[in-house]
Amino acid sequence: MASQRPPAAPQANSHPPLTAQDSLGISAQTQLRPIEEIGAELGLGQEEIEPYGRGVGKVDLAAIQRLAGRPQARFILVTAITPTPLGEGKTTTAVGLSQGMARTGRRAAVAVRQPSLGPTMGIKGGGTGGGWSQVVPMERLNLHLTGDIHAVTAAHNQLAAMVDNHLHRGSPSGLDPERVSWRRVMDVNDRSLRQIVTGLGPAGGGPTANGPLRQTGFDITAASEVMATLSLARSLEDLRARLGRIVVGSTPEGELVTAEDIKAAGAMTVLLKEALRPNLLQTVEHTPALVHCGPFGNIATGNSSVVADLIGGRATDYLITEAGFAADIGAERFFNIKCRLSGMTPDAAVVVATVRALKVHSGRHRVVAGKPLPEGMLGESPEDVLLGAENLRAQLRIIRRHGVTPVVAVNAFPTDFASEHEVIAQVAAEEGARCALSTHFVEGGAGAAELAEAVAEAAEEPSEFRFLYPEEAPLTEKIETIATQVYGAEGVDFSPAASTALAAFTEAGYGHLPVCVAKTHLSLSSDPALKGAPSGWRLPVREVRLSAGAGFVYPICGTMQTMPGLGSAPAAENIDIDAEGNPRGLF
Amino acid sequence: MASQRPPAAPQANSHPPLTAQDSLGISAQTQLRPIEEIGAELGLGQEEIEPYGRGVGKVDLAAIQRLAGRPQARFILVTAITPTPLGEGKTTTAVGLSQGMARTGRRAAVAVRQPSLGPTMGIKGGGTGGGWSQVVPMERLNLHLTGDIHAVTAAHNQLAAMVDNHLHRGSPSGLDPERVSWRRVMDVNDRSLRQIVTGLGPAGGGPTANGPLRQTGFDITAASEVMATLSLARSLEDLRARLGRIVVGSTPEGELVTAEDIKAAGAMTVLLKEALRPNLLQTVEHTPALVHCGPFGNIATGNSSVVADLIGGRATDYLITEAGFAADIGAERFFNIKCRLSGMTPDAAVVVATVRALKVHSGRHRVVAGKPLPEGMLGESPEDVLLGAENLRAQLRIIRRHGVTPVVAVNAFPTDFASEHEVIAQVAAEEGARCALSTHFVEGGAGAAELAEAVAEAAEEPSEFRFLYPEEAPLTEKIETIATQVYGAEGVDFSPAASTALAAFTEAGYGHLPVCVAKTHLSLSSDPALKGAPSGWRLPVREVRLSAGAGFVYPICGTMQTMPGLGSAPAAENIDIDAEGNPRGLF
Repeated sequence: MASQRPPAAPQANSHPPLTAQDSLGISAQTQLRPIEEIGAELGLGQEEIEPYGRGVGKVDLAAIQRLAGRPQARFILVTAITPTPLGEGKTTTAVGLSQGMARTGRRAAVAVRQPSLGPTMGIKGGGTGGGWSQVVPMERLNLHLTGDIHAVTAAHNQLAAMVDNHLHRGSPSGLDPERVSWRRVMDVNDRSLRQIVTGLGPAGGGPTANGPLRQTGFDITAASEVMATLSLARSLEDLRARLGRIVVGSTPEGELVTAEDIKAAGAMTVLLKEALRPNLLQTVEHTPALVHCGPFGNIATGNSSVVADLIGGRATDYLITEAGFAADIGAERFFNIKCRLSGMTPDAAVVVATVRALKVHSGRHRVVAGKPLPEGMLGESPEDVLLGAENLRAQLRIIRRHGVTPVVAVNAFPTDFASEHEVIAQVAAEEGARCALSTHFVEGGAGAAELAEAVAEAAEEPSEFRFLYPEEAPLTEKIETIATQVYGAEGVDFSPAASTALAAFTEAGYGHLPVCVAKTHLSLSSDPALKGAPSGWRLPVREVRLSAGAGFVYPICGTMQTMPGLGSAPAAENIDIDAEGNPRGLF
Repeated sequence: MASQRPPAAPQANSHPPLTAQDSLGISAQTQLRPIEEIGAELGLGQEEIEPYGRGVGKVDLAAIQRLAGRPQARFILVTAITPTPLGEGKTTTAVGLSQGMARTGRRAAVAVRQPSLGPTMGIKGGGTGGGWSQVVPMERLNLHLTGDIHAVTAAHNQLAAMVDNHLHRGSPSGLDPERVSWRRVMDVNDRSLRQIVTGLGPAGGGPTANGPLRQTGFDITAASEVMATLSLARSLEDLRARLGRIVVGSTPEGELVTAEDIKAAGAMTVLLKEALRPNLLQTVEHTPALVHCGPFGNIATGNSSVVADLIGGRATDYLITEAGFAADIGAERFFNIKCRLSGMTPDAAVVVATVRALKVHSGRHRVVAGKPLPEGMLGESPEDVLLGAENLRAQLRIIRRHGVTPVVAVNAFPTDFASEHEVIAQVAAEEGARCALSTHFVEGGAGAAELAEAVAEAAEEPSEFRFLYPEEAPLTEKIETIATQVYGAEGVDFSPAASTALAAFTEAGYGHLPVCVAKTHLSLSSDPALKGAPSGWRLPVREVRLSAGAGFVYPICGTMQTMPGLGSAPAAENIDIDAEGNPRGLF
């Protein structure tokens, strides 16, 4: 643990100084290594890497079979404490840790999600990682990459068009136009599409008629069940079967109608065939990065894909991956949904903490996205950090409850004080967890060397991984277990609608599915205003929905926005090409 | 000219026999040559070809500058007589001709449009060419290729989201919510999206509000003005400027509001940066194929891109390209819109004719898409062909009117009779045009050798290319010139709305733009039922719209569908993966 303010200037053998918001510049000046060379480091043959533009390749799924006999990599999850709305650098830490592993002489790869175009154009510019811990080429990564998200949009909306056409043609399945739950998707922040009416204009059966008049809407593509399904499929055949199971609505009698009934699942699979292959890129330090899928953390797993893990898990010595939001949400889903499906179990979990987020968890400060940090947060205050560390303790215990060894990564900022870092180290020690300071943003892998050593040690401890609940537990019990043992709730209050839905899903044969609780990521509780480790509260389950294709049931606790809007000054307004034709404003 | 029924079985030194609808099979068994090798045949360096999956590359636009000093290729347009709803094989002929040029010892490349996903899933399966005259890999070509169409969707809808957000934020430009003309697009056949209402749900200015309540709709992406703009841009800077000129609506006073006013054009350009680079593929005989853009022939140019022509025009000896629909529509727009922009002038134009279409033009038969040909059309009838040849004569004269040398290509079918082919040859001779029988579908380039020789001869005649109208002619005069001199109308009837719009566009400074008349492609006239070369009719212009970004004004004559619907048995229902994970049902 460093005992002084972390260095703002880089050390010898490190990168040139970072100017603020210079991630795009760093990416642009990175000399990309041919992607086949990066693949070769993973033991992938030329024929298993199909190049998609410079520095980007798609990995053939046949690699899963071919590598099956090789030893399993150490599997490291990167998760976090409950973040501020600014985010605490989880992706950056995952990328930096993979670079740090390489700097300390280890073979490693990182598996991360693909950023969504909507937020890139909406809020902030994009990025997978940042500074000297990012995946490149950043421009491609943040725009269309290899088109996977667009393929999800196409497959999702192909099903929607076939559903409305099915209704237009007399609904042979008996699907009730008023009970269609399948919406449409687009990868854009567009609040006007949240609630729409379709099928206006000429009605009837003729060629100029416009189909059934219905109220429906659009979600952002990341929130598509097709995206969640793609991220959880183990193979093309598995994807085909899962897509067929997607429920699009029901008959007036409540019989569920699926994509298979609509005869759309085959075409959807063909549309997704390329998208199922993980994308191989590199970090700014030329270590391998698998970038694949971007399921919405709000209502889906928020993890990168199972196939990327299956390939990466046999292709290197340390596979580092991240899960959306804090450990209560992302890690819990990673353990109980994704690991259950992939059969891969984690050897250690990094919990990213920042001084600023811990100060917020003291309850004494409030951070608002898009505004500067409040003055009161900038002074030296180990007391605030200690108060807020209750959140860190709770998140570490969530990891421990699954039998996984946690490591605290302090994502250092130039505004931090050494005394504040020391408090974090002390809390980690009290919880029996290793702790390391990481300055990967400004120093790249060299700044994450200490973290890499700590993680490598932790990963050698014997694994005692266990699921939080068995598959056969009733759905209500699964939800109660997560609420009480992970979130720290005293119990769960199911609305009548939620209880009815849970009974219906169980009756229809979906009782064995895991649950993916949709709640705010800004608190361990379901109330975003409650910081630290709230107690004395109950989890309100307003409604419950089914993702039969992805393979989970998701209870909704609070209001969940599945289509973002644009702000008063969207990022897109500042995005343009410069005189040389290069994009600017992407970060 | 063959004097017997064309051979159904292939000749020596040709391809194995074709089973019906075997285009996907032919594509699948084609051993792709590395795309860098195809690029090398065009004189493109490795650094100018970025591979995007096996057998697909994107060409760097810097090649335009680098090749500028090289001699201009012979530039050959492939167009057609007025087709039946089945199409008469224009793309197949263009591809086959480029293969035929190679078979006869000439360097050649073909530049074609990218197929749209909507129709691929909707009507027919896809295809760029077919049989032994197609571009491969067909699966990639018909699905997402390099994502260009998806990029157009993203750029178009990014502007739409910013328009609604602009209104939501109080419309600083004064844009009137009731005068927004910018719709949204999606690459799917979905009639339910033709007319919709957006912005339902909570109103007002808060974060949960959904934006202005408006009636609007979706078009298929091919119909996007962004697609037309992309196809006509000469460079990235030109694209940026054109996107900024796109008109999204007007103020209550009629002031036009542009994408520049909405501050969206920069982000749109960045989203389209990769899509502006033409895709390089190969034919089944490994000759180069530039595949780029797919503007909707109904309301836009229906030609492939200007940048593909600018590259191909200096990279080979014969550049063959196609234009949508018949010569009256596709060739006229190619000559007067695209050639005006690219500065490239054609050396010859192939007019594709089929016995079946000429029989329909006799007025004695009727062909319906999706149904077998009527019995009466299958017998030997040179008389019907002669009667219908009036359409061929008219289309040849349209080519001549632009000073271009026409060549008739008889796209032979196994059901044709030699006597019928002889009639076509005789009519061509009467019109002073070369004529060749082509069996490229079943025989590949070998079947197009005779056509290649005829085209090469025609291209050596001195070029007297001329535009049909000068830029400075008034918009009404341009429309009248096209109607009378190309379509054979006696005059034009402008509706009051059309006259008002023409006056307003002229007043607003758009009077210099060329016009892109939107009329049926199933007749030389504006009435799809009138076959042959109709006379004694007037062109009714119902309304006139502006594509200020693409750079043309488009009068609408009749009803134009810009979002197809799905049929009672969509092609997608039969698309699936087989046991080996390969797509089936795409053709």
